[in-house]
Amino acid sequence: MKDKNTAALTPPMGFNSWDCYGAGINEAQLLANARYMRDHLKAYGWEYVVCDIQWYEPTAQNAAYHHFADLCMDGYSRLIPAENRFPSAAGGRGFGPIADEIHAMGLKFGIHILRGIPRQAVHRNTPTVTPGITARMIAQDYSVCPWNTDMYGVDAYAPGAQEYYDSLFELYASWGVDFVKVDDIANTEFKPTEPYSARKEIEMIRSAIDRCGREMVLSLSPGPAPIEEAFHLKMNANMWRVSGDFWDRSDALLRMFTLCEQWYPHVGPGCWPDCDMLPLGTLQLTETDPRYRARKTRFTENEQRTVINLWCMFRSPLMFGGELTLLDDFTLSLITNRELLEINQFSSGNRPVRANEDEAIWTCTDKDGNGIIAFFNKKPAPRPISYEFGDDAAGLYDLWSKKTGKLRMPVCLLTLGPCESRVFRIIHK
Amino acid sequence: MKDKNTAALTPPMGFNSWDCYGAGINEAQLLANARYMRDHLKAYGWEYVVCDIQWYEPTAQNAAYHHFADLCMDGYSRLIPAENRFPSAAGGRGFGPIADEIHAMGLKFGIHILRGIPRQAVHRNTPTVTPGITARMIAQDYSVCPWNTDMYGVDAYAPGAQEYYDSLFELYASWGVDFVKVDDIANTEFKPTEPYSARKEIEMIRSAIDRCGREMVLSLSPGPAPIEEAFHLKMNANMWRVSGDFWDRSDALLRMFTLCEQWYPHVGPGCWPDCDMLPLGTLQLTETDPRYRARKTRFTENEQRTVINLWCMFRSPLMFGGELTLLDDFTLSLITNRELLEINQFSSGNRPVRANEDEAIWTCTDKDGNGIIAFFNKKPAPRPISYEFGDDAAGLYDLWSKKTGKLRMPVCLLTLGPCESRVFRIIHK
Amino acid sequence: MKDKNTAALTPPMGFNSWDCYGAGINEAQLLANARYMRDHLKAYGWEYVVCDIQWYEPTAQNAAYHHFADLCMDGYSRLIPAENRFPSAAGGRGFGPIADEIHAMGLKFGIHILRGIPRQAVHRNTPTVTPGITARMIAQDYSVCPWNTDMYGVDAYAPGAQEYYDSLFELYASWGVDFVKVDDIANTEFKPTEPYSARKEIEMIRSAIDRCGREMVLSLSPGPAPIEEAFHLKMNANMWRVSGDFWDRSDALLRMFTLCEQWYPHVGPGCWPDCDMLPLGTLQLTETDPRYRARKTRFTENEQRTVINLWCMFRSPLMFGGELTLLDDFTLSLITNRELLEINQFSSGNRPVRANEDEAIWTCTDKDGNGIIAFFNKKPAPRPISYEFGDDAAGLYDLWSKKTGKLRMPVCLLTLGPCESRVFRIIHK
Amino acid sequence: MKDKNTAALTPPMGFNSWDCYGAGINEAQLLANARYMRDHLKAYGWEYVVCDIQWYEPTAQNAAYHHFADLCMDGYSRLIPAENRFPSAAGGRGFGPIADEIHAMGLKFGIHILRGIPRQAVHRNTPTVTPGITARMIAQDYSVCPWNTDMYGVDAYAPGAQEYYDSLFELYASWGVDFVKVDDIANTEFKPTEPYSARKEIEMIRSAIDRCGREMVLSLSPGPAPIEEAFHLKMNANMWRVSGDFWDRSDALLRMFTLCEQWYPHVGPGCWPDCDMLPLGTLQLTETDPRYRARKTRFTENEQRTVINLWCMFRSPLMFGGELTLLDDFTLSLITNRELLEINQFSSGNRPVRANEDEAIWTCTDKDGNGIIAFFNKKPAPRPISYEFGDDAAGLYDLWSKKTGKLRMPVCLLTLGPCESRVFRIIHK
Repeated sequence: MKDKNTAALTPPMGFNSWDCYGAGINEAQLLANARYMRDHLKAYGWEYVVCDIQWYEPTAQNAAYHHFADLCMDGYSRLIPAENRFPSAAGGRGFGPIADEIHAMGLKFGIHILRGIPRQAVHRNTPTVTPGITARMIAQDYSVCPWNTDMYGVDAYAPGAQEYYDSLFELYASWGVDFVKVDDIANTEFKPTEPYSARKEIEMIRSAIDRCGREMVLSLSPGPAPIEEAFHLKMNANMWRVSGDFWDRSDALLRMFTLCEQWYPHVGPGCWPDCDMLPLGTLQLTETDPRYRARKTRFTENEQRTVINLWCMFRSPLMFGGELTLLDDFTLSLITNRELLEINQFSSGNRPVRANEDEAIWTCTDKDGNGIIAFFNKKPAPRPISYEFGDDAAGLYDLWSKKTGKLRMPVCLLTLGPCESRVFRIIHK
Repeated sequence: MKDKNTAALTPPMGFNSWDCYGAGINEAQLLANARYMRDHLKAYGWEYVVCDIQWYEPTAQNAAYHHFADLCMDGYSRLIPAENRFPSAAGGRGFGPIADEIHAMGLKFGIHILRGIPRQAVHRNTPTVTPGITARMIAQDYSVCPWNTDMYGVDAYAPGAQEYYDSLFELYASWGVDFVKVDDIANTEFKPTEPYSARKEIEMIRSAIDRCGREMVLSLSPGPAPIEEAFHLKMNANMWRVSGDFWDRSDALLRMFTLCEQWYPHVGPGCWPDCDMLPLGTLQLTETDPRYRARKTRFTENEQRTVINLWCMFRSPLMFGGELTLLDDFTLSLITNRELLEINQFSSGNRPVRANEDEAIWTCTDKDGNGIIAFFNKKPAPRPISYEFGDDAAGLYDLWSKKTGKLRMPVCLLTLGPCESRVFRIIHK
Repeated sequence: MKDKNTAALTPPMGFNSWDCYGAGINEAQLLANARYMRDHLKAYGWEYVVCDIQWYEPTAQNAAYHHFADLCMDGYSRLIPAENRFPSAAGGRGFGPIADEIHAMGLKFGIHILRGIPRQAVHRNTPTVTPGITARMIAQDYSVCPWNTDMYGVDAYAPGAQEYYDSLFELYASWGVDFVKVDDIANTEFKPTEPYSARKEIEMIRSAIDRCGREMVLSLSPGPAPIEEAFHLKMNANMWRVSGDFWDRSDALLRMFTLCEQWYPHVGPGCWPDCDMLPLGTLQLTETDPRYRARKTRFTENEQRTVINLWCMFRSPLMFGGELTLLDDFTLSLITNRELLEINQFSSGNRPVRANEDEAIWTCTDKDGNGIIAFFNKKPAPRPISYEFGDDAAGLYDLWSKKTGKLRMPVCLLTLGPCESRVFRIIHK
Repeated sequence: MKDKNTAALTPPMGFNSWDCYGAGINEAQLLANARYMRDHLKAYGWEYVVCDIQWYEPTAQNAAYHHFADLCMDGYSRLIPAENRFPSAAGGRGFGPIADEIHAMGLKFGIHILRGIPRQAVHRNTPTVTPGITARMIAQDYSVCPWNTDMYGVDAYAPGAQEYYDSLFELYASWGVDFVKVDDIANTEFKPTEPYSARKEIEMIRSAIDRCGREMVLSLSPGPAPIEEAFHLKMNANMWRVSGDFWDRSDALLRMFTLCEQWYPHVGPGCWPDCDMLPLGTLQLTETDPRYRARKTRFTENEQRTVINLWCMFRSPLMFGGELTLLDDFTLSLITNRELLEINQFSSGNRPVRANEDEAIWTCTDKDGNGIIAFFNKKPAPRPISYEFGDDAAGLYDLWSKKTGKLRMPVCLLTLGPCESRVFRIIHK
């Protein structure tokens, strides 16, 4: 039997287009980010280039969806890239040329989809790949996304339903897709009293990937995924969102600590609870609302480092949200700390050892067997944090300053600045 | 200012096609019922002939909806009768000829609609009556009915939204419609945490009727309408459902007592909380499921009389659900008790005076100022019910047996059979 | 059968000690207010003097409850007045002497109780009036008030339970009590998912009053009472709270409009949905928290008049909350507008005719058959309100300014100041 | 810093008195079970003898609580054993003599407590160990257990609160207690919307144990403990209930599979999600209700073995609920399968690998590194279960039949009887 875990033995690292381009990215923008990744980030392990939502919508420009817009679709009710935005898709080649180009850079290519079948296919009653089965016959009529008008859910009990999903992933495999972010599925918000109502669609997608002949990372959105369903998520997906959309807001960062405390026991090879994209650097380039438009992240430097530290100590997937070609030195330094990225990729036993309203302490073991400890000040004011090390701890190596300090007593008392965090490797006697 | 109450100064009485034909009634069936009403029921006050859901769907046959079926629609995104089912609608005459024929019988004509604009209009992006405004521009994308695929809600804040509803009721007025049952609106079940989410659409429909130049009864479904919104309902509608669909089940009948206890203070001219259709006589003629098909009502005779008694004492609208041409003598007798129908139409001060798990007692004053009292045994076993009359009560006239009994003591002790109920006029000294 | 409605054929009007003294009022303070009422308010219909919560707690001083404090109790587990606070209660005379004195003023006397039996009686297992039945045997162990430690609920199914309540009201009748405000009963907050869990205790109290040989107004607190239970409330009580505690906050006043729209159909002789005390004049005399202490009401003059206008148009009970002996002229004028108080006491058909986020309009018919109309601006800024009168309206008499204006057109356009309201009698042609 | 995990490095195994004696066990009964354990079960790892609820209540006889009964209490508001039930407690020796006797058998002794302070102490306002602090001053007045009247919660913010808990555990340490089951704490049912409202009391108890000078297992009841709080539970307790009370009902057993799927990642040394007592053998010896009284477990033999298999594969604590001295051979065989108990005590990596409505498959690694696999048929009818082993699996050793079968193909197809389960050690090539 296929093991879906091999597709993501370590947390996926990459770039996702949503935070800077919303639904409106185009081929040139996507490839520019890919080239930057090849030149500056690939050496640190970054590899996925993910094109987010609505690449099949010709008029999409930013995060505002055009309700009921006409979507590009093939003869089997499958969405295909809008050629005006992705010219290489012309001639029915879909994302194949872009995937080829990204693969040629030594990187991997991902796409976003919404669960279901296009509403326009259902209303036009267009064919599916299964002879005699039309879009209308497999749609689950009441199952809609509350924030986007593109799709109806697919009814798992309808003949032709699994075949439809199979036909989707066959197409994606033929393009060379390595990563699929499926949305409106880990928490189906139209049904607040039953957030996991798409359970059967998750299973159909898992089967479709297993059969498509190409290994793909399966990423589920949006969050919060219900923790009661952790087992089902682990059996079927490679990563899934633990929160709603994460943006550069301090309260959301604080909330993430609680979510990491809930989810850490479920972290492991092939199964990555996902803290969402890193909203760092330059964001929302194409927004029209002046409150948000083309801004630098609103997080303080301390908070930005806390994002990286927490995502790494928890082993979240790392999907960068800012425009790579506009990276400043500080932000670049945040995502190229090789020692910290190794914690994210290769550590084990990651867990909180203290967690309260004021502070958090996480530990793990790095790939060489060293103890790692991270201190987080959750308050926006300086605070002392104390911790009692074992007798064999001789010193602490700071993974950011690269300096080593001696531990004179087993009890260490650190003063952290507002929302500051620090990560140390423990030096043993 | 127009007074919407004049459209229904007494509880509407009529026939509705749902309980016997589901979504599939046709012109011949509808008119056959109308003719029966003219010949046998009109003299008792019955007057509305209401064509229920999906008259615009050519393939509808019974209560099973055909998901995403093509609907008959005019050039302004308005649904029109399916000519294969309603031949007189040919030539763009809509329901005009049927309304004319029913009016000629001295009766009134009603139709059912679902709130919103057809999904097919939205996906085809067809015009509305307002130049420059298409269906897509006024649809509220996430607002769907969870049990029927015909419509999207209309966004009250979109330019052209009110005009669209105005255009609907203009059309209905031109046909000669007297009664509109609007569905998916009094309780929008897709949003269980916000059942009155269609508040603004109710207001748009109210305005559209006020402007259409023809008086129409506005009936809202389904129930339960939220009692917290009683004031808004009374300001805007003439009747609204207090319960979910009422069928011939004993538990539903018991539940109706509680609902009547909650709603009775809101009963008054032009404002009729609605206990739903009377599922009596022969029901579901065209169902294919053998458990339900073409059956006689499952209520016992006692229960059937209790339905009539409660609906009349509460002053619910009376919409008969069974096929009129198949009426047996007992059922006919139930709906032609002139004295009881006068209670329904003309009594006042209707209210419960006792209400517990075992029994209910309701009183009112009839049009001549006599006291009326109804005793209900809610248990499926014989039970005594006692009641203390005032000193001036000399006797009780039974509205069903037409017999009068003397009251020897102010305390009256009645024994009622299983689920039996009795209605008396009090004879004063 | 007794008719509980005769105890309150019109909305009760009086003074309640909570808003100015919390749980700490004493005999002198209570009688001072009674004397003021006799001298200045009785002529306007004010008649009840109600001693609020914890008169049996010797150390009570203000609104802060002393958890588990020792309570004064007689030999049958019944609470009795603390003699240090109510010296006339000495010698086992209870509230008898105070009631006598208040009756001698031509006024009526009321007390507050909490449903249930004292926890101290349960834990000491003291006797009840029923031989062989101790407090412990009738207590409902888990049924506690979440904001006060005095009582356990009484288990209606326990032998001796009804007798215990009977013994309470016998005692109150012997004292001469005319009004009982029972608390922790109309909404049992310890059980948020079942707010009407004290249904059986309400029934026991109703029976106890019916048997006690003295007519008493039964008032139930706190609110919100569940509107689904309106029928049960009307069968058993004379007034019940529609909201949580009402204080001098603008948002609470706005909320009251919505509650009045929900409850107005249930208003009638003997049945008075209660908008709570009037927090006007000087409040919270004995509070120690400097934010609240001994302040004038925070409502603006417009808001204060709106309180009176709404309470009168809705026909709420009127229980004044401020210290009467400190009444300023403006506040006194608010509660001595004889014409408006007659609306409260004797009008009929009271109902809203418009109600939205910006404004409300209420109408009723006064005791002489004149139309009364009240306009409320709900916004904190001046706003015009238009209204279309019938053709026979010639003028409007303002119940506050006592001036009459002509209506030149059937459409009247009024400009109201921030949160202002006005009440008019319609002058007919 | 103390490590609370050392108190329970493997899942605790023992006997608990609730399932056979309710609240009414006495010294002789407890010691008889201890002696049986010493003679027949100790060799298999069984070691705790736990006296369940209300040992301080002289009149307790079975599972029916005597509401508000007088409790035995010392001078510091601490409950002490009722001497009529536990004669060795005379002379203020508490549970010391019983603990000594059990220790002398080579076993360990546990008691049950309810969080909080006795209500009788609060109402009598008795002293606590802290000078000047009485019971009343530390009680949290509204915090009650909905099914037992003994206690009020303790307010963590009150001076003297921690000292009171410290004084409890000092006393228990002085007696020689090794295990404390604290009830009404892991899910505070009086507050259905906030089940973890006793969070602060859990922390106080944790601190009190850490300071008391004796290692004690901390077990929290009842369930379901909220999984969102898994981290807090793991930081503070050694075991906590994942479900409500588990009795011999098939539906409860099925539900336990789902709970184990949710909780397994949290299983580890010192942290044991608890599936509750094993309701096997002879139960409820002293019940008076004839439906339950002194019955054999209602589980079928297959179900009984499934209980043991699931509890062992999940690594739940094993607390036997039946009367040990009445053990029949079959039941004895269930709890003395040394190989299976070793799975419970020493295996690792325990997790489900398949879980659906029909079947479950769990795997783990035994202490010698062998793969263990368990198959569960969840249906009450025979069913085939297939499983694909790796190429290196040569055979399966059945831990119950002790027989080994060859695996001829990597795909194994087993047929399991109704609700049957089987556990195998994988024999590698």
